Amino acid sequence: MTASRFAPMPAPPYYAVIFSNQRAAADPAGYAQAADRMVELAAEQPGFLGAESTRDADGFGITVSYWQDETSIRAWKSNAEHRIAQETGRERWYEHFITRVAKVERAYALK
Amino acid sequence: MTASRFAPMPAPPYYAVIFSNQRAAADPAGYAQAADRMVELAAEQPGFLGAESTRDADGFGITVSYWQDETSIRAWKSNAEHRIAQETGRERWYEHFITRVAKVERAYALK
Repeated sequence: MTASRFAPMPAPPYYAVIFSNQRAAADPAGYAQAADRMVELAAEQPGFLGAESTRDADGFGITVSYWQDETSIRAWKSNAEHRIAQETGRERWYEHFITRVAKVERAYALK
Repeated sequence: MTASRFAPMPAPPYYAVIFSNQRAAADPAGYAQAADRMVELAAEQPGFLGAESTRDADGFGITVSYWQDETSIRAWKSNAEHRIAQETGRERWYEHFITRVAKVERAYALK
């Protein structure tokens, strides 16, 4: 079992930010460093509940982060260090991305 | 651009089914065949809006399917051929999974 890749399952409702993205070829080292830092920084934010993330060999990735409420999502989006990463992402790291904000209503697991 | 990996962006609200999963080592050929078939079958269901899916080399995958409403999600979950795949998934294909049903409230893209 590799349950550590899975986020916790708090009682709904809570929020999911679904970030699907296609990496550009540019700047793999800079991207990797920023990605690690954003994981670390997100975990320090009020209302952060966890995240799940994966990417295939073609560079298509999905990261879902989970948050207590809309207030915590908006605070994270406007975090100063995160804003710099968002801007670099738009300019350099991603060919395309879609971000969707959704309210989790129910959840179940294999076991 | 590889926009074909991305699902469409209909006007919210609509629903997301976030399926995060860890593949077991067993039965790669059977799994691949069933996964392809489920994509094909899902696309035929009423209310299906699209899906995004990726998996890394360690077998950790995230698939997000998008649906018009709860009714279409429940109908897909109870589809006879899908139920057989779900059962085989529980027994053989997945070490662990979490399914979360969430209502998409807003979305934005890089461009």
